[in-house]
Amino acid sequence: MHRTKVRVVEDVLDANNTIARANREDFDRHGVTVVNLMSAPGAGKTRLLERALDGLAEAGVRAAVLEGDVQGSYDADRLSLLHIPVVQLNTDGGFGGECHLDANMVRSAIPSLPLADIDLLVIENVGNLVCPAEFRVGENARIMVCSVTEGEDKPLKYPLMFRACELVIINKLDLLEHLDFDLDRLEANLDAVHPGVDRFRVSARTGEGVDAIREWLVRATERASAVA
Amino acid sequence: MHRTKVRVVEDVLDANNTIARANREDFDRHGVTVVNLMSAPGAGKTRLLERALDGLAEAGVRAAVLEGDVQGSYDADRLSLLHIPVVQLNTDGGFGGECHLDANMVRSAIPSLPLADIDLLVIENVGNLVCPAEFRVGENARIMVCSVTEGEDKPLKYPLMFRACELVIINKLDLLEHLDFDLDRLEANLDAVHPGVDRFRVSARTGEGVDAIREWLVRATERASAVA
Repeated sequence: MHRTKVRVVEDVLDANNTIARANREDFDRHGVTVVNLMSAPGAGKTRLLERALDGLAEAGVRAAVLEGDVQGSYDADRLSLLHIPVVQLNTDGGFGGECHLDANMVRSAIPSLPLADIDLLVIENVGNLVCPAEFRVGENARIMVCSVTEGEDKPLKYPLMFRACELVIINKLDLLEHLDFDLDRLEANLDAVHPGVDRFRVSARTGEGVDAIREWLVRATERASAVA
Repeated sequence: MHRTKVRVVEDVLDANNTIARANREDFDRHGVTVVNLMSAPGAGKTRLLERALDGLAEAGVRAAVLEGDVQGSYDADRLSLLHIPVVQLNTDGGFGGECHLDANMVRSAIPSLPLADIDLLVIENVGNLVCPAEFRVGENARIMVCSVTEGEDKPLKYPLMFRACELVIINKLDLLEHLDFDLDRLEANLDAVHPGVDRFRVSARTGEGVDAIREWLVRATERASAVA
């Protein structure tokens, strides 16, 4: 029984990877760098994007967002104020709603994305620290956001998510003084599961540290165009 | 294709419900009230339990905890300081780890639970606002915790979770003054998806409002014994 179950799961991931590669080829053909942005619900992904994407056009990067949610378009509505293309993808077609984006969902959104007119696509995943890390969607890089209000133990409890990303953004730094939270312990736990991974300490609320994210996105976009 | 997929999902949930009923019969036979505690990662479930379960014995309720995590036993270690039975259930047997507890996982833990010696079992689910709401595990009641650091929009974005519970605990009230957060808007969003659902405003950190949770648990346990 156990072996059968695992085999099915591998097939699902295998099919997902096949579609992810097809997505990646489409993105590459248009020279679009794709970032998969993941976090727990309420870690501040949308507020970070509001801050970090504002000013990207001045840096020569034309960005768009693919917004993944179980239901609704609240974040997409917020981000559309940036006057960049925002496409909403809802996962509630099934039963209670899928808890993550997969490659095929992203594939279904590709015709709605203006790939010829952008350099960077940020895919804001469903808020969840487990399954989004298991499904590649054709991205070049994965960023995860953890907020200091969530506790220092999260890398140890959700190791795959913290291992699956190229950059960890530690958000809500402005609340640090009001919490019993040890930032060094969080970073030690992070290094225990993903030694030396790039990380930024930021506050999306005050804007502290957001420049570093914007520069990281610009560099990621330049790297991809240099290869293309 | 779409119809086939939906049918498979229903079969999974059907099998889950069958096992959940078997769990419930076992719990009922021993007169044990079972609460399924759910939230996003880092909303404060464990800290709330540390507070609310402390003092339950004096109220005549013998409690135990079944701790669900993808990996590790950090929360179980914390709760064992309460000198109550704590059983750890890890979901990482599969690939990246299951993002929720299901009835069969809970069933596998039943032989390790001292059902004859307890009145209340709290099942702390994996931190996730989507899938845990889809899987009954044989519980009498479901409680969900949302923290004010997560934003007011969560009921609208994860409606099934907020609909699936009998009690909503609004946590981290001590941080309210440091946030751009409108508690009335959260409650209005909550009423939009689950009109009139019971709710408590608490701070697990300061202890504010935790008495109400303890009393709710005592009443839930008494109700179940009156029926048994």
